[in-house]
Amino acid sequence: MIVGIADTTFSRIDMGKIAIDELRKYSPLKYIRYTVPGIKDLPAAAKILFDKGCDIVITLGWVGKTDTDKLSYVAMSVGKILVEVLTGKHVIDVTIHEDEAEDEKELYRIAENRVREHVRNAVDLLLNPKKLQKLAGTGQRQGYEDVGPILF
Amino acid sequence: MIVGIADTTFSRIDMGKIAIDELRKYSPLKYIRYTVPGIKDLPAAAKILFDKGCDIVITLGWVGKTDTDKLSYVAMSVGKILVEVLTGKHVIDVTIHEDEAEDEKELYRIAENRVREHVRNAVDLLLNPKKLQKLAGTGQRQGYEDVGPILF
Amino acid sequence: MIVGIADTTFSRIDMGKIAIDELRKYSPLKYIRYTVPGIKDLPAAAKILFDKGCDIVITLGWVGKTDTDKLSYVAMSVGKILVEVLTGKHVIDVTIHEDEAEDEKELYRIAENRVREHVRNAVDLLLNPKKLQKLAGTGQRQGYEDVGPILF
Amino acid sequence: MIVGIADTTFSRIDMGKIAIDELRKYSPLKYIRYTVPGIKDLPAAAKILFDKGCDIVITLGWVGKTDTDKLSYVAMSVGKILVEVLTGKHVIDVTIHEDEAEDEKELYRIAENRVREHVRNAVDLLLNPKKLQKLAGTGQRQGYEDVGPILF
Amino acid sequence: MIVGIADTTFSRIDMGKIAIDELRKYSPLKYIRYTVPGIKDLPAAAKILFDKGCDIVITLGWVGKTDTDKLSYVAMSVGKILVEVLTGKHVIDVTIHEDEAEDEKELYRIAENRVREHVRNAVDLLLNPKKLQKLAGTGQRQGYEDVGPILF
Repeated sequence: MIVGIADTTFSRIDMGKIAIDELRKYSPLKYIRYTVPGIKDLPAAAKILFDKGCDIVITLGWVGKTDTDKLSYVAMSVGKILVEVLTGKHVIDVTIHEDEAEDEKELYRIAENRVREHVRNAVDLLLNPKKLQKLAGTGQRQGYEDVGPILF
Repeated sequence: MIVGIADTTFSRIDMGKIAIDELRKYSPLKYIRYTVPGIKDLPAAAKILFDKGCDIVITLGWVGKTDTDKLSYVAMSVGKILVEVLTGKHVIDVTIHEDEAEDEKELYRIAENRVREHVRNAVDLLLNPKKLQKLAGTGQRQGYEDVGPILF
Repeated sequence: MIVGIADTTFSRIDMGKIAIDELRKYSPLKYIRYTVPGIKDLPAAAKILFDKGCDIVITLGWVGKTDTDKLSYVAMSVGKILVEVLTGKHVIDVTIHEDEAEDEKELYRIAENRVREHVRNAVDLLLNPKKLQKLAGTGQRQGYEDVGPILF
Repeated sequence: MIVGIADTTFSRIDMGKIAIDELRKYSPLKYIRYTVPGIKDLPAAAKILFDKGCDIVITLGWVGKTDTDKLSYVAMSVGKILVEVLTGKHVIDVTIHEDEAEDEKELYRIAENRVREHVRNAVDLLLNPKKLQKLAGTGQRQGYEDVGPILF
Repeated sequence: MIVGIADTTFSRIDMGKIAIDELRKYSPLKYIRYTVPGIKDLPAAAKILFDKGCDIVITLGWVGKTDTDKLSYVAMSVGKILVEVLTGKHVIDVTIHEDEAEDEKELYRIAENRVREHVRNAVDLLLNPKKLQKLAGTGQRQGYEDVGPILF
């Protein structure tokens, strides 16, 4: 089985490199990496990676701070889902929004954690989906501390 | 007939477990449960569950408080409908918005009720659609008290 | 020819009943009624009604007052159009927005008129499309008084 | 070759009549006119006109002033593009937004000009696409005076 | 291999001409240019260019300042991605938003740079995709100075 990794030159952090590092640590799976300019190019990248034989794709996006960036995020998200529905395969989307953190150090920390956690999610969906089921409803947050479940 | 139940690790309440509990109480139907990371993964989960033979899918989503979360909600909703239109089958979407309630206890109560009521909706759509027709235009609210019909 | 009528249990007015009443008064056409929980389920209902042999579908939706409801309205609208484009048939969408009127009596009046006028639109599109052409550009408003044309 | 003209009864100006007048002045092309209730019905109208043999479709829409109208405009626009992408043919969309002008006279002037200019665009795309290329980047504005190019 | 270049008469800068100039400088690739009225016509233009044999398409759009323009931008973006997903090929979208700069000179500078940089991106995606991979995560900004990577 092959994991597709799609990332962008727009991103200010080499999320693709972090994803590959985590994939190697966490699984024996092969991967194909494909870099495109920005987030609106990621759904096409995912489609192309599926056409090359990937079984799952991880898209690594970076969204700027403007309203236009938010609108591009909606279009990308609809496109990601379109690819999934037409292929019947998952695209695990890892998006960093530039306005998520006050300083660059914090942004880096969030991005690295989010990428690593979602790479493990992608591998688990492929090889061991029951692992995710054990975490169902537990308030997992990729990039931040998990908020935990609400229990009564 | 088989009911697909798709839930997330992002959710802070084990909505999948509640759905299964209600399904067992309310019907003899079999189910397949599938857990994915977050709401943007639910349309793909629904497609995969249909590919595995499900006749209807219940998606159980949890939406955060930020504007970005709202945008993800739109993309997920378009994706849910895309899956339905391409398969000709229903995806009953149960979404909890974190900003619906002031405290966690209230949120839990809404979530549990909404899941249980929509599980019954899904079963009725499959086995007894006339039951929903009797409730047409009566202001049903899943998770809250029904508001009732406006009559003149 | 058969008219599909899709309505919801969420609606506070029995729009399906009004639609059937108007359809019987205005035409000899047969109909199939199908009730689903809420507006996000209407595109799937339309698809299912077309699969059952309907030639046109009337969807009767009720939209709440929150921002989330508005987002669901967008998703539903995109889905309605998706069904139409894939089937090459019309889905006449009758939507009531809860914030359209100050009191329930007014809301009822708008809803009833809008349903009745759009049922006639649907029948005319099927049986007598030239009738609509005569009204082209005349500022028809379903549910309110027509605003009339701007002429110079 | 045949031009499809889709207009609405919601519009307050008989845009279809203006379009036909301009088409006759500007070209020898045949046309089929099809009137539907409102803008959300225009993508289906375009699909139906293509199914009847049209080579291009002009949709003539009128958008009200409310937020809901704007949301319907987004859905219609996505639908217009969906029809184009699935058929490989152009739908030239002429939309009048009621909040574009202060008074009705001005609105009429904008609408008439926009319809006439876009009819010529549609004919040129079919018969003489190089004509549009000569105007590339020149700040054409249908309905208003052209703003002209920015040159340095 | 052939590059499709789609531009608009709405744009205030002849972005198509700049794209062709850059394409000739940067590669030996052939191109087909196709000019349409505005941004909502670009996805259809891309589809038509693929149907004519193009291997990649560059769309050159100009977005006005109003809210309606922003909504058209969302629809266009969803459409661009739809074309990509259905063809499995890239549409590199170069959009200029009129509100990006204070004066026309600055807008021209941004537009020219953005077009040239994205033409090189498109050529590299076709002929030399590893070149983009070397720039992954380096904060490339087409039209502005690159912001550079965040490193820790």
